[in-house]
Amino acid sequence: MTTAVLRLDTVDDFRLRAEATLTAAVRDFVAGGSDSETTLAANRAALDRVTIVPRVLTGGPDPEPGATLAGARSALPLAVAPMAYQRLLHPEGELATARAAAAAGVPFVVSTLSSVPVGELAAAGGEQWFQLYWLNDDRDTMNLVHRAEDAGCRVLMVTVDVPVMGRRLRDIRNEFVLPAEVRAANVASGAMSAAHDRADAGSALIAHTNRAFHPALTWAHLEALRSRTTLPIVVKGILDPADARRAAEIGATGVVISNHGGRQLDGAPASVTMLPAAVAAVPDTCQVFVDSGIRSGTDILRALALGAHGVLIGRPMLWGLAAGGETGAAGVLAVLDAELRAAMRLAGCADVAAARRLTATTGC
Amino acid sequence: MTTAVLRLDTVDDFRLRAEATLTAAVRDFVAGGSDSETTLAANRAALDRVTIVPRVLTGGPDPEPGATLAGARSALPLAVAPMAYQRLLHPEGELATARAAAAAGVPFVVSTLSSVPVGELAAAGGEQWFQLYWLNDDRDTMNLVHRAEDAGCRVLMVTVDVPVMGRRLRDIRNEFVLPAEVRAANVASGAMSAAHDRADAGSALIAHTNRAFHPALTWAHLEALRSRTTLPIVVKGILDPADARRAAEIGATGVVISNHGGRQLDGAPASVTMLPAAVAAVPDTCQVFVDSGIRSGTDILRALALGAHGVLIGRPMLWGLAAGGETGAAGVLAVLDAELRAAMRLAGCADVAAARRLTATTGC
Amino acid sequence: MTTAVLRLDTVDDFRLRAEATLTAAVRDFVAGGSDSETTLAANRAALDRVTIVPRVLTGGPDPEPGATLAGARSALPLAVAPMAYQRLLHPEGELATARAAAAAGVPFVVSTLSSVPVGELAAAGGEQWFQLYWLNDDRDTMNLVHRAEDAGCRVLMVTVDVPVMGRRLRDIRNEFVLPAEVRAANVASGAMSAAHDRADAGSALIAHTNRAFHPALTWAHLEALRSRTTLPIVVKGILDPADARRAAEIGATGVVISNHGGRQLDGAPASVTMLPAAVAAVPDTCQVFVDSGIRSGTDILRALALGAHGVLIGRPMLWGLAAGGETGAAGVLAVLDAELRAAMRLAGCADVAAARRLTATTGC
Amino acid sequence: MTTAVLRLDTVDDFRLRAEATLTAAVRDFVAGGSDSETTLAANRAALDRVTIVPRVLTGGPDPEPGATLAGARSALPLAVAPMAYQRLLHPEGELATARAAAAAGVPFVVSTLSSVPVGELAAAGGEQWFQLYWLNDDRDTMNLVHRAEDAGCRVLMVTVDVPVMGRRLRDIRNEFVLPAEVRAANVASGAMSAAHDRADAGSALIAHTNRAFHPALTWAHLEALRSRTTLPIVVKGILDPADARRAAEIGATGVVISNHGGRQLDGAPASVTMLPAAVAAVPDTCQVFVDSGIRSGTDILRALALGAHGVLIGRPMLWGLAAGGETGAAGVLAVLDAELRAAMRLAGCADVAAARRLTATTGC
Ligand SMILES: Cc1cc2nc3c(=O)[nH]c(=O)nc-3n(C[C@H](O)[C@H](O)[C@H](O)COP(=O)(O)O)c2cc1C
Ligand SMILES: Cc1cc2nc3c(=O)[nH]c(=O)nc-3n(C[C@H](O)[C@H](O)[C@H](O)COP(=O)(O)O)c2cc1C
Ligand SMILES: Cc1cc2nc3c(=O)[nH]c(=O)nc-3n(C[C@H](O)[C@H](O)[C@H](O)COP(=O)(O)O)c2cc1C
Ligand SMILES: Cc1cc2nc3c(=O)[nH]c(=O)nc-3n(C[C@H](O)[C@H](O)[C@H](O)COP(=O)(O)O)c2cc1C
Repeated sequence: MTTAVLRLDTVDDFRLRAEATLTAAVRDFVAGGSDSETTLAANRAALDRVTIVPRVLTGGPDPEPGATLAGARSALPLAVAPMAYQRLLHPEGELATARAAAAAGVPFVVSTLSSVPVGELAAAGGEQWFQLYWLNDDRDTMNLVHRAEDAGCRVLMVTVDVPVMGRRLRDIRNEFVLPAEVRAANVASGAMSAAHDRADAGSALIAHTNRAFHPALTWAHLEALRSRTTLPIVVKGILDPADARRAAEIGATGVVISNHGGRQLDGAPASVTMLPAAVAAVPDTCQVFVDSGIRSGTDILRALALGAHGVLIGRPMLWGLAAGGETGAAGVLAVLDAELRAAMRLAGCADVAAARRLTATTGC
Repeated sequence: MTTAVLRLDTVDDFRLRAEATLTAAVRDFVAGGSDSETTLAANRAALDRVTIVPRVLTGGPDPEPGATLAGARSALPLAVAPMAYQRLLHPEGELATARAAAAAGVPFVVSTLSSVPVGELAAAGGEQWFQLYWLNDDRDTMNLVHRAEDAGCRVLMVTVDVPVMGRRLRDIRNEFVLPAEVRAANVASGAMSAAHDRADAGSALIAHTNRAFHPALTWAHLEALRSRTTLPIVVKGILDPADARRAAEIGATGVVISNHGGRQLDGAPASVTMLPAAVAAVPDTCQVFVDSGIRSGTDILRALALGAHGVLIGRPMLWGLAAGGETGAAGVLAVLDAELRAAMRLAGCADVAAARRLTATTGC
Repeated sequence: MTTAVLRLDTVDDFRLRAEATLTAAVRDFVAGGSDSETTLAANRAALDRVTIVPRVLTGGPDPEPGATLAGARSALPLAVAPMAYQRLLHPEGELATARAAAAAGVPFVVSTLSSVPVGELAAAGGEQWFQLYWLNDDRDTMNLVHRAEDAGCRVLMVTVDVPVMGRRLRDIRNEFVLPAEVRAANVASGAMSAAHDRADAGSALIAHTNRAFHPALTWAHLEALRSRTTLPIVVKGILDPADARRAAEIGATGVVISNHGGRQLDGAPASVTMLPAAVAAVPDTCQVFVDSGIRSGTDILRALALGAHGVLIGRPMLWGLAAGGETGAAGVLAVLDAELRAAMRLAGCADVAAARRLTATTGC
Repeated sequence: MTTAVLRLDTVDDFRLRAEATLTAAVRDFVAGGSDSETTLAANRAALDRVTIVPRVLTGGPDPEPGATLAGARSALPLAVAPMAYQRLLHPEGELATARAAAAAGVPFVVSTLSSVPVGELAAAGGEQWFQLYWLNDDRDTMNLVHRAEDAGCRVLMVTVDVPVMGRRLRDIRNEFVLPAEVRAANVASGAMSAAHDRADAGSALIAHTNRAFHPALTWAHLEALRSRTTLPIVVKGILDPADARRAAEIGATGVVISNHGGRQLDGAPASVTMLPAAVAAVPDTCQVFVDSGIRSGTDILRALALGAHGVLIGRPMLWGLAAGGETGAAGVLAVLDAELRAAMRLAGCADVAAARRLTATTGC
C-alpha cells in the first residue's frame, strides 16, 4: 500500500502547521494537560534529560527498526495511541490516521471515543487494536468489545487511568463543547450526547465523559474481561511498578507506562522516569510500552534504551492529521521513521533488541 | 449549614481577583516572605518537584477525603491556618472565614491576633481551634487561653517559630501600619496599640509585635501550659525532626511542620522537604500537619503521600476572603475539595489512609 | 566609640546606591570576577541553596553573636576582608572603613595594597590585622611585616591564591588604570607604579601586580615566615581540604576558605561547598573562616551552620564605603548585625557555638 | 617559526568577529548540532558544571603546559580537531590553520574532507595527523592512508562516529550546498561531487556524505587497518567506556571521547561526563583525549583534571580562521595558551601531570 506523504523536517513543524489552522479551543484540547500542567511539562523535561551512550563499529549498515508488538510484526517499535474524536482535526478523522498507520505498517489503536465507527475503520486496512473505556453499563462495554472483535481488531488496550477525567483547565476555561458533527461513534448515542451541550460552566466533555465511564474499576473487572475475550490485553495507564506486575500476573500481554500525556493526575511523574522500574518488575512474557511526550526518533530510542519494547505516539499524529489529513499523518510517521533509523545507526544498534541493551540514564 | 459559594477554577484565580482589589501594602503583607524570600520560593518549588505515583483499578467510586484531625472529624484533611488581622481583607474578617470553614466542615484556627474577638467567632459555628502567641506577660497569656476555652475552642495550637517577627522587607519598605479599624481584638489594647503608629522607619507591625510577644520561650513553657489546660495541644512551626519528637514526648497531639509560609527564617528549608523525617521521628500518637505553599488539591495529596495527616491552608483563604467575603472563602475551600477528590480518585485512593500509603518523591 | 550610621535595609540597597555614584570602571573593578565569572555566580548560587534547619523553644532572648577570632574577641563572627585601593571608592578610603569596623567592634584587615599606609590606619582604632602579599623581594616582604607589627596589627593574614592575578575581563576591557591619587601606600613606590600607566592593552593593574608579587610561593615560605614573626598567621585562599590541614600542621591559627570572591581561578568551586570538608580536615586549634559571596546575616548563619568560625565581608564593605564613607561602611555592618541577630533568634541559637551545631545542607 | 597573531581576549570574541563576516548558512554549518541540539547544549552545560579545586603554595613560577601527544611533544595539551572544508571560512583554508598550529607547536589534524589536499598541507610545517573517514571503497580508503603517510602525517585518527551524518536541521533548512570552489580535495572528485548540487530538499552535504562514507564499519576494519599502516592510530568518536577499552586492546595509541561537537547522535551525553569512566577503563598505554565544547584554557584544565591527556579544539579554530585567516587561528591558540597557563598557575599545577592529579567534580 502506498500513500502520499507530507514532508516536513520535525514533529514540531507539523505542530506549528496544525496549530495555524485550528481554533484555539481545539488546539488547546489537543495540547493541554490537567491542572497546572506540571506533569505535562515533566514529560518533556524528563525525556530531554535522558542520555543514550552510543556504541561504535557495530557494523550495519541498515538498522532494522521493526518490532513484534503484542505478538504481531510492526515496521516500527510504535503504535498510534488511541485518541478520541479525531474528526475535530480533519473531516476524515480516524480513517485518515488509520490509513497512514496501515501504510507505514504500524498498529493503529482505535479509541472507544473514535469519531468514526470501529467497523468502518477496518476499511483502512493494517493492524488495528481497540482501546476500551469501560462504560457504566457492563453490557454496553461488552458490546464494544464484540464490535471491536468483529471489526478485526487484534488487541484490546484497556485504559485504566480514567476513573474520572483530569481537570483540564484549558477546556474548562474554553467551555469546550464537541461540535454536532463530531460524535463518539462507537458509543450508544444517549451515553455521550451531553458532551455536545454547553454545560453550566466548564468543559462539557469532562462533565459527560465522567457520566459515561465506569468510575470504580477493579482488578476483578480486568480478570472478568480476560475470560470473556480471546484477544490479547494490553493495560494502558500504569505508573506504579507493582501495578505493572499485577497486570502481568493476570495475563496481560503488555502494559503501557503512561500518564496519559499529562492529562490525568497532575503531579504524577514523567512516564519515562517510571519505565526502568516497570521493566524490572514484569516477566519477559509481558511487554512494556511507554507514552507521553515522545516527539522524535531520538525519544523512541531513549525509551527503548530504558527498556521499553515500544512506544505510543499521541499528539504528533493529531498534528499531522490537522496539517494534512492522511498525508500529514503519514508525514509524522515518516519523520519518526527517518529519525529513528538515523538515531539507531548513530547509536550503533542493528535492531530493537540492540537498542534495548544501550546504556541510558534518566539524568538526576 | 449552607453557604453561597463563589465559583472560580483555581486558587490562583482567587488570588488574582483578590489582588485586583487590595492596596499594594495589604497585598504585600499577605503575599510576602522574609528577607530575600528564598524560603517563600522554595516552598513552591519543592511542592512542584514532589511526584505522586498513582495506583489503578482500586475501585471506588467516591473517595472519602474526611479525616480525624486532633481527635475530631473534619470533612477534609485540612484546617484553616491561623492568620492575623483578617479584617484587613474584608470588613467581616475572621467571621466570614470561620463561617466558610464551618460550612465546609473543616476546623478554623483563630489567631491570637484575630481582628474579631475569639468570643464573637463562636457564632460562626463549626470546629474552632485557638492559636496561641505567648505574650510577654504570662497572666495575659493564660487569660487568652481561658478566653479560648470559654469560646469553645477545642484545640490549642501553640506557635513556636515567632520568638521575633521575620524581617519582611515588603512591609518595611511599605512602612506598613494597621488601619485604626483593624485591631488585635484578643489582646489587651495597650499591648498592640503601637502597631497602628507610623514607626520611625519600617513596619510598625514588626516593631510592635516584637514588643508584645515572649521572646524566650522554652520547652518548659510548653510543659507548664500542658498542665494548665485540658485542651489538646498542637505545636506549630517545627522543622527539625528532633523538635517534632520532643513535642510528641511532652504530650503534643500534633505538630505543624511549617516555615510560617516563608515569613520567618529565610534560608529555612521548604517544609515539605522536612516532612518525611518528621513523620518518621514521631510516634503514631502524634499527628503531623504541614503548611507553607499548599495551593491545590494536588498539593494536599502530595503532603498526604509524604506522610502528613493533614495540612493548613494559609494565604489562599485570605485571597478567597478578599475576593468575596464568606462566599469567596467558601469558594477556595470548594476548589480544594473538588481538586482533592479528583486527585484522590485519579491516584486510586479511597481515603486519606490510602493516600498516605502512596509512593511520593521529593525530587532531587 | 560611636559613629554615625547610614540606615538602609539590605546590603543590596548599599550596592545600588554605591553603583549609582561610581564610574563604570570602578564599579566593574569591584563587582567583577575572572574569565567567564562562573565561580563568581556559583558563590551566590551555592549560598542560596544552603538551607538551615531552625530549632525552637531554645530560650533566649538576646542571641550573642560575639566570637573569638584568631584569639581575640569580636562583636560579630566576621572580619572586614582585605581589599586593595579603597580610596577608589571614597577619598578617606581604608581610614573610613577601619573606623566603621572599630566602631562595630570587628577586626579590619589591612591589605598589602591599602591606599592608606598601615601606619596611619592605627589611628582608626580597633582590632586590625594585616594581609600580606608576598612581594618579589623577600626583604620588601619582611619590611611590610615589620611595618604591620609596628602599627599594632595583631594577626598576619597571608594570601596564597594570587601567584598571578586572575584574568578579570571587565578590567581588561575597561583598560582599567589606577588614578594618580590612589596608590599602594605600603609598597615601595617603584614596585607598583606601573599600575598607573595605560598598558599596551588590557588592565594595567593585572600586568603590574603580576610583576610585583612573588609568583612561586611554597609551604617553605610560610614556615619561614612562621619563625620570623610572633603574630598569629591566618592563611587566606584555600579550597582543598588537604591544604587546609597542611596550613594547620605548620601552625596556622586559621585558614580562610575562599576563592577570592570569584576573582582568581574561574571554575573553582563555590567556597561554601568546600567548607564542611575543610572543617573536618583541620584540628580544633585552627579556626576556619570563609568568604566569597556573603551578603546577609542569613549568609553568615549559613556559614556558621556549615562549620565556619567566622566569615570575611568583602565587596559589601566597599559598597557601604562608596555609598557614604565611614557612615556607609558602618551601615553595612549594622545591617549584617541586625540580620544575623534576627536569624540567630529565628533559628534558636543563643550564640555562635549553637549556630555551629545547626543542621545545614549545601543542596544538591 | 613566527606568525602574526590577532589579539582578542576570549574565544567568544573570535566567534563574534567571525560570525559578523560569515553568511548565515556557513555560520550555521559551523555552529550547529544535530536534531534539537540537546547534546550541543549539554556539552557546554556540563563543562560549566565541572569544578576544579586549586592547590596552593606549590611553587612555580612558570607552569609548563607542554604534553606528549600520541608519542610526540606538543607545546600545549591540545590538537586542532579535524574539520572539513575550511576554505568555507577563508580562502587559504586548512593551509592557514595548519600554519597557525605549526607556529604554536601543536598538532594539526587534517580532515579526510580537507579542502586543501593533504600533500599541499605539508608545506605548513609542524606536526600533522590525518583524520580518516573510511570510504565506501576500501581501495580509496587505503589510498587516502597512503597519501597521508606520504605527506608526513605522523598519526592516523580514525573517526568512528559517522556511520551516517547527523541530521543537522540548520543545514537542512538552509538547504546548505558547498560552493563550487570548496571541494573535498583528498577524495576522488566523483565521490563527493553531489555535495555541490542543490538536493531535492535539505542539505546536499548530508545526502552526499552519506553516499561516500562506509556505513557499516566494524572492529575488524580497525584491526585490518592496524596491520596495514605503521602509523599510531587514535580512535575518534567514542563515548562508551567499553568501546574505549576495546580500542585500546586492539592497539590504539589513543581514543577521543567525543560526541562530534553535538553534531552526531542527539541525546548522547556531554563528552566530559563520560571522560572519567573512559580514563578508568583503558590501560596507561592508551591516551585519552576529549573534545566537544572546549572554549577556554579553563575548559582544558577541567578536562585534564578529569583525567584527559589532551583535548581537541574544534569550532574555535574555525572562528579564528574566519576572523583573520592564519593570524586569527593563531590568535585563538594564543588565547588558549594564555588562559591555560594562567589557570594552571592559579590551580597550582607545574605541569600537565599535576593538572591530571587535581580534584575535579562533574557537578550533579
Ligand atoms: C486529544 C487526545 C485524546 C485522547 N484520547 C484518548 C482516548 O480516547 N483513550 C485513551 O486511552 N487515551 C487517550 N489519550 C491519551 C493518549 O492515548 C496517550 O496516552 C497520550 O496522548 C500520550 O502522550 P503524547 O500525546 O504526549 O504522545 C488522548 C490524548 C489526547 C491528546
Ligand atoms: C497574613 C498572614 C498572617 C499570619 N498570621 C499568623 C498568626 O497570627 N499566627 C500564626 O501562627 N501564623 C500566622 N501566619 C502563618 C500561617 O498560619 C501559615 O503558617 C502560613 O500562612 C502557611 O503558608 P501559606 O500561606 O503559604 O499556606 C500568617 C500568615 C499570613 C500569610
Ligand atoms: C576590589 C577588591 C579588592 C581585593 N583586594 C584584595 C587584597 O588586596 N588582598 C586579598 O587578600 N584579597 C583581596 N580581595 C579579596 C577579598 O579579600 C575577599 O576574599 C573577597 O572579596 C570575598 O568575596 P566577596 O567580595 O564576595 O565578599 C579583594 C576583593 C575585591 C572585591
Ligand atoms: C564544521 C565542522 C566540521 C567537522 N568536520 C569533521 C571532520 O571532517 N572529521 C571529523 O572527524 N570531525 C569533524 N568535526 C568534528 C570535530 O573534529 C570535533 O569533534 C568537534 O568539532 C569538537 O567540538 P567543538 O567544535 O565544540 O570543539 C567537524 C566539526 C565541525 C564543527
